[in-house]
Amino acid sequence: MSAPQQCQRQAVSRYPVPPLEDLPEDIRGRILAVQEKSGFVPNVFLALAHRPDEFRAFFAYHDALMEKDGGLSKAEREMIVVATSGANNCHYCVVAHGAILRVRAKNPLIADQVAINHRKADITPRQRAMLDFAMKVALDARNIADEDFDALRAQGFSDEDIWDIAAIAAFFALSNRMANFTNMRPNDEFYLLGRLPKEKSK
Amino acid sequence: MSAPQQCQRQAVSRYPVPPLEDLPEDIRGRILAVQEKSGFVPNVFLALAHRPDEFRAFFAYHDALMEKDGGLSKAEREMIVVATSGANNCHYCVVAHGAILRVRAKNPLIADQVAINHRKADITPRQRAMLDFAMKVALDARNIADEDFDALRAQGFSDEDIWDIAAIAAFFALSNRMANFTNMRPNDEFYLLGRLPKEKSK
Amino acid sequence: MSAPQQCQRQAVSRYPVPPLEDLPEDIRGRILAVQEKSGFVPNVFLALAHRPDEFRAFFAYHDALMEKDGGLSKAEREMIVVATSGANNCHYCVVAHGAILRVRAKNPLIADQVAINHRKADITPRQRAMLDFAMKVALDARNIADEDFDALRAQGFSDEDIWDIAAIAAFFALSNRMANFTNMRPNDEFYLLGRLPKEKSK
Amino acid sequence: MSAPQQCQRQAVSRYPVPPLEDLPEDIRGRILAVQEKSGFVPNVFLALAHRPDEFRAFFAYHDALMEKDGGLSKAEREMIVVATSGANNCHYCVVAHGAILRVRAKNPLIADQVAINHRKADITPRQRAMLDFAMKVALDARNIADEDFDALRAQGFSDEDIWDIAAIAAFFALSNRMANFTNMRPNDEFYLLGRLPKEKSK
Amino acid sequence: MSAPQQCQRQAVSRYPVPPLEDLPEDIRGRILAVQEKSGFVPNVFLALAHRPDEFRAFFAYHDALMEKDGGLSKAEREMIVVATSGANNCHYCVVAHGAILRVRAKNPLIADQVAINHRKADITPRQRAMLDFAMKVALDARNIADEDFDALRAQGFSDEDIWDIAAIAAFFALSNRMANFTNMRPNDEFYLLGRLPKEKSK
Amino acid sequence: MSAPQQCQRQAVSRYPVPPLEDLPEDIRGRILAVQEKSGFVPNVFLALAHRPDEFRAFFAYHDALMEKDGGLSKAEREMIVVATSGANNCHYCVVAHGAILRVRAKNPLIADQVAINHRKADITPRQRAMLDFAMKVALDARNIADEDFDALRAQGFSDEDIWDIAAIAAFFALSNRMANFTNMRPNDEFYLLGRLPKEKSK
Repeated sequence: MSAPQQCQRQAVSRYPVPPLEDLPEDIRGRILAVQEKSGFVPNVFLALAHRPDEFRAFFAYHDALMEKDGGLSKAEREMIVVATSGANNCHYCVVAHGAILRVRAKNPLIADQVAINHRKADITPRQRAMLDFAMKVALDARNIADEDFDALRAQGFSDEDIWDIAAIAAFFALSNRMANFTNMRPNDEFYLLGRLPKEKSK
Repeated sequence: MSAPQQCQRQAVSRYPVPPLEDLPEDIRGRILAVQEKSGFVPNVFLALAHRPDEFRAFFAYHDALMEKDGGLSKAEREMIVVATSGANNCHYCVVAHGAILRVRAKNPLIADQVAINHRKADITPRQRAMLDFAMKVALDARNIADEDFDALRAQGFSDEDIWDIAAIAAFFALSNRMANFTNMRPNDEFYLLGRLPKEKSK
Repeated sequence: MSAPQQCQRQAVSRYPVPPLEDLPEDIRGRILAVQEKSGFVPNVFLALAHRPDEFRAFFAYHDALMEKDGGLSKAEREMIVVATSGANNCHYCVVAHGAILRVRAKNPLIADQVAINHRKADITPRQRAMLDFAMKVALDARNIADEDFDALRAQGFSDEDIWDIAAIAAFFALSNRMANFTNMRPNDEFYLLGRLPKEKSK
Repeated sequence: MSAPQQCQRQAVSRYPVPPLEDLPEDIRGRILAVQEKSGFVPNVFLALAHRPDEFRAFFAYHDALMEKDGGLSKAEREMIVVATSGANNCHYCVVAHGAILRVRAKNPLIADQVAINHRKADITPRQRAMLDFAMKVALDARNIADEDFDALRAQGFSDEDIWDIAAIAAFFALSNRMANFTNMRPNDEFYLLGRLPKEKSK
Repeated sequence: MSAPQQCQRQAVSRYPVPPLEDLPEDIRGRILAVQEKSGFVPNVFLALAHRPDEFRAFFAYHDALMEKDGGLSKAEREMIVVATSGANNCHYCVVAHGAILRVRAKNPLIADQVAINHRKADITPRQRAMLDFAMKVALDARNIADEDFDALRAQGFSDEDIWDIAAIAAFFALSNRMANFTNMRPNDEFYLLGRLPKEKSK
Repeated sequence: MSAPQQCQRQAVSRYPVPPLEDLPEDIRGRILAVQEKSGFVPNVFLALAHRPDEFRAFFAYHDALMEKDGGLSKAEREMIVVATSGANNCHYCVVAHGAILRVRAKNPLIADQVAINHRKADITPRQRAMLDFAMKVALDARNIADEDFDALRAQGFSDEDIWDIAAIAAFFALSNRMANFTNMRPNDEFYLLGRLPKEKSK
């Protein structure tokens, strides 16, 4: 082996990322808003802006599931994302939503635990049942049966909560595949977010 | 064994189907339009109407991928749906999109072939490459690599076509999971659609 | 991409199909009898006639399992074929036996349901247990245990019925592999058979 | 833990084994002939005699594949049985056909090697290609493609040889499932057969 | 196909085997001691001598698990090795430890039974539970849960016994991978060892 | 659902952790030394101290592989640990060795990348080949073949380097199973280690 190889720093996406000024008004507006709030633009916004119609549908779907009220806390919704994205080996979603989970749960350890093996995580039995079911939606939806609903109801989940769990796992089945297909790169900022004591939830 | 058992006719969905008159105006409008065009309301509209915001995002995403122009024909888009839904054992999507595929391809055999084993179907080498890649997105997206893009480009697909293939497979990864989770039942009408010589494409 | 590609219509078999007049008397007789009864010669007879001794053993085995009396109806036997052939992605067996199942069950929907996901089909709990076991024989016979027998007996199956279920699933493990290996093509006639109201069972 | 448990010596079959004198003439004749030749009755004859019609078809099929002439030696045919039966965790077939393989190959080591991992066995490159293909028929027949035929032809196999390889692997897909389903027990004699230098091939 | 191919007799290891006289004193001493006791040098000692420090750690670990006292008999420890090595398709470990198992259990049949399918072996219910758990450690350790401990305790295993079962399965997860990686060849002597009535346990 | 559930903070191990003062001299010494160097005692030392002989063999093996010189850098050795531990869903090893990898590579991002999907990580082609092979050892050692060695040699790895890659992956096959079996908990300190700019490598 002769000359040393360079580490290849992966790009934001396999596909071109459009300049902000070329984007439709609504999409640019959404991106500026998230930048204002977070201090940076998560790469998923840039990568998906390559296709404005899909961008709009994607984030409408995302918000319908992740920003709504209901029996699941926002941290629990992110747990579902992180656990199923780990099972799908999705680099973007584990790192980006891991950060959001740490912030929302105010817990610097939880995201790595849930991403690697939710069965070993510091969670409640109710959360364990929630994640077991989310993993079945992600990996084996063909076998979902009445017994799965019974197990969740026994933990106090309503049927609407169960829909939420399933729909989040199903939406990230889509999202994980798009991120793996485009080689979507998480922003460097996500890796450290929520790991330090002083940070505040947003 | 004593009294004979009854076959259980599965319902449209595990979840309640809202009456048409209770639905938001835009959703009721879309449902009436599809009924007008098809002669019946595909059950996916009824099952997802349980969640209006998700309904809107779902169909916006669907239309962005399935109704657009581009290098893939409409029949080819449906082939992707049918092949990946077969791999996911999704009863609703194989039957409903199988019907649409037969109608769009004007070919009464193609849907069953593609659903069961696309490697044995009467398709072109280009379509075979398209479906091989769609199956990788559906089942093994973590391993997508540059070589996959090379194989598709060698068959004449542009990078935008490749995005279409991947995005359709990814969207039905979501759709198949929702259908399997809700036990979504395909309308009886779909089973025969496109199988008889006289039918016309819509 | 320059000139349009042609769809490749698959042949009856990768191997030569012998002319009827060259076949041994008994095999030709069997083929003429099935043609007389069905109106066409199912391709499995033509493909396997390449090897007369195997042809004879194959159909003797088939008839011993599928034409006998016992606790399983003929439609139920075909359900086992269709469900396990779906799991093995066997184009010939799903299409051909799907047709026979529709005819025998006088039900135009049942074959597609059972082939795609028997857990979502309009069947009785007894048939569900039968198919669960058949799938275990097809896919995971190494783990068959006493508990599997108990579950079937609880649904009223005798031990001879259980042998029938297992033997049919095992025989089509052979049949599916031969069909996939030879690229056996189902006759076009099978796709529509049993889907129209007026057809009669044979 | 109180009283010591007894090792449970497994029976010949989960199903009753009929007494020789109750069997149809032809089946009894075949059993007596094999006993005369081998010195004992392999349990597969006793277990399958529970179903005379299936017994006849099974052994007719077996003989059509295993006793014929052609490009594969008898030892090579047994290699296919042992390798695929190992992959299916079939106790009966690995032990019984392992014995036959040792005798036919005059090699006391070959059966254990092929059953555990044929990629590490003392075999020729041609035999390696044969077993690779047989394993694909056993485990992944849905993906058999032209390239598989090319690889075998490159090792000198004719298309008729390739049929033999596939048909043997397919037949033992059936046989392994019946043996695992019935808990078929190999005779104690098989374990040692062909392991000692002085034994003669039969 | 022209000239006949030669069977390739696999070597002891892909890597060079150091001459005995070049080995460090302690390693040569251990090898001479095992030769004295067994009458031959098992190839694992020669293959691993390529790396003296790893050799020392490997056998220290092995002895800590396999030569200690406790609730598991020495034959039961070997059963764990043989069952998990079969699941990992490890030629060396199945053949070599199969021999040791036959000798220690004074049972010429048990090793082949456990290697092929422990669910069909002539073992006690306690041993069956032990091997079920060992297989879970070997193949699916991520899912080990409290229920697995309950099932073992119900068979009379202490928590220290359970550690032994798991640690042996885990150690051979290492050993099987090293043997498969180096193409480690079992000595011919192992194949027959413990199969003949007159042999004595060592 | 009535009273809120408590998150269960997992213990260091399912098994008792012995007090330092009860440990044998050499083990206590090793633990005190690591505490001196790292500022805390990694839980693997405490969990494995339950079994002193296995503790000694485990760390002797670990040091023989991880502390030696050779063609692999120390950071590359840790990459192998993190990638294969991710594939095995081993909470302890991903978190603890992820920290060591960040420190040794002086790269705060690399551990999460490699743990989730090494195919998307910022690494060199040589490191990519190294990890592809390590994953094959971890997940599919039975199929390792000459071609795997060729691919590594083409990247400049010597045969001794290849042994190192395989042996590290094999050793952590053991380690991951012990950690999953004992529910070994990573120290909270590991999660943040190596993520902040000012930290120094140790």
